[in-house]
Amino acid sequence: MRMFNKVVIIGTGLIGGSLGLALKKQRLAGQVIGLSRHQKNARLAKKAGAIDGIGSSLEVVADADLVILATPVDTIIDFALRIEKKIKKDCIVIDVGSTKERIVSRLSALIPNFLGCHPLAGSEKKGIVNLEDSIFKGSICIITPTVKTNNHALNKVKLLWKRLGAGIVILSAKKHDQVLAFTSHLPHAIAFSLISSIPDQYLGLSSSGLRDTTRISSSDANLWSEIFLSNRGNLLIALSIFQTKLTALKLALESKNKRRLAKILLLARKKREKLLSFQRAHYLSEA
Amino acid sequence: MRMFNKVVIIGTGLIGGSLGLALKKQRLAGQVIGLSRHQKNARLAKKAGAIDGIGSSLEVVADADLVILATPVDTIIDFALRIEKKIKKDCIVIDVGSTKERIVSRLSALIPNFLGCHPLAGSEKKGIVNLEDSIFKGSICIITPTVKTNNHALNKVKLLWKRLGAGIVILSAKKHDQVLAFTSHLPHAIAFSLISSIPDQYLGLSSSGLRDTTRISSSDANLWSEIFLSNRGNLLIALSIFQTKLTALKLALESKNKRRLAKILLLARKKREKLLSFQRAHYLSEA
Repeated sequence: MRMFNKVVIIGTGLIGGSLGLALKKQRLAGQVIGLSRHQKNARLAKKAGAIDGIGSSLEVVADADLVILATPVDTIIDFALRIEKKIKKDCIVIDVGSTKERIVSRLSALIPNFLGCHPLAGSEKKGIVNLEDSIFKGSICIITPTVKTNNHALNKVKLLWKRLGAGIVILSAKKHDQVLAFTSHLPHAIAFSLISSIPDQYLGLSSSGLRDTTRISSSDANLWSEIFLSNRGNLLIALSIFQTKLTALKLALESKNKRRLAKILLLARKKREKLLSFQRAHYLSEA
Repeated sequence: MRMFNKVVIIGTGLIGGSLGLALKKQRLAGQVIGLSRHQKNARLAKKAGAIDGIGSSLEVVADADLVILATPVDTIIDFALRIEKKIKKDCIVIDVGSTKERIVSRLSALIPNFLGCHPLAGSEKKGIVNLEDSIFKGSICIITPTVKTNNHALNKVKLLWKRLGAGIVILSAKKHDQVLAFTSHLPHAIAFSLISSIPDQYLGLSSSGLRDTTRISSSDANLWSEIFLSNRGNLLIALSIFQTKLTALKLALESKNKRRLAKILLLARKKREKLLSFQRAHYLSEA
């Protein structure tokens, strides 16, 4: 069922392109127009069927019903400022950036129908060659409205993500950034640091443990530098807590305290079971 | 082709049981006898077809051609001491423990045809219910002979692992432990500490990044306490190097040094590519 006549996606990378593909597959949009810094990417997105046409300038937002800001997190505010005067009054604008506080506090004051969104559906694989319309199915999308948020826009955006198969979680932008510092940005920082620690000549003598633990260190360096910097305070707190936990394990090891060590590992193992049961429960409820 | 008339596996958990299954599937043994601390596990191993019979006591090793010590790493020397006087003179004894220096230095002096082995083919899933004969296919098995090692026994053990589909790497026991501290024990210590750092109420707001980064924290707490303690010195060194890397990332973040941060992440990403190409090259050469 069509929800929007015209959708404009600014940034046709992995998330933007996959959104285009999903919108078209679910027939939620009459027309999807994509824009990219790189003409080549936009052409590939079109070829992949993720967009119907390529916008030649930001003027294409003029008659859009939905604009999706899917550029790197440090450029989202810039693009919003450049389209803000061009869009229709009732146009809904969402972003899909990985951090929300800075973006939402700025844009919710500027655009009446703006909503910050964060689909927890990324991948270490970046860009247009890895588009998948199914990455949102069974995923969680966090939406971060403010007291100013128009209720009609909020309901429409909730419905959009539901149609794409995502479960909705409503959080304040501030809380979102606190949570994601732990559940996403910390694991990335750890994975980057872990792979950096392994001497080159040892890499070949490893198995699936090292491979999986460091999978997300294959993520794009520039994108992730910006994400880390945009959530700097919260990530520094998460890093400190991690360091405390690591030090506790190290002390038990140094002092050969087998009982303490085994207890630390057992509590960790139990928490991982909890993680799996949460993720499984969510997946089942959306499947 | 049969390589051994009688094989005894002491410890029919994930690795021991999977070895039994693979030996029988490849018809490498006339008869496979298993022993376990837990009668129930031995019965399950038999039911799964991993062993032909259950040994009622260690006396069953008397006419064995191959004894596989597959118990937790802290009990391997004990079991070796208990069978040492019972085995035939030409019986080959191998262990499959995750650390090698302590075990190999003790047992190579004691048993003429002893060889330390470490198949890099574990899983966070422990025990008999997860047996798979294919876990060795395309994996690496590290063998740690000493100057005393009988060449005939070494060649036979190499052939055994090759038949099971593993690639062979020969290392000294000391070097093995130095390498594995980085490529296996460090990632485990990090994964346990990472999951411990996540507040319970945030666990549900996570995706595949946290799940994969912490997969191996579902490993058995007792087994892994013993592994950590048995490679304490090397693991403490690996932990220190990791902490240095993490501190470098943290400092770049604290000082908002985008260029330095991006460079750290880019080097990490490149090293992960190297890891994947090593693992892929190995897999292809064995496939």
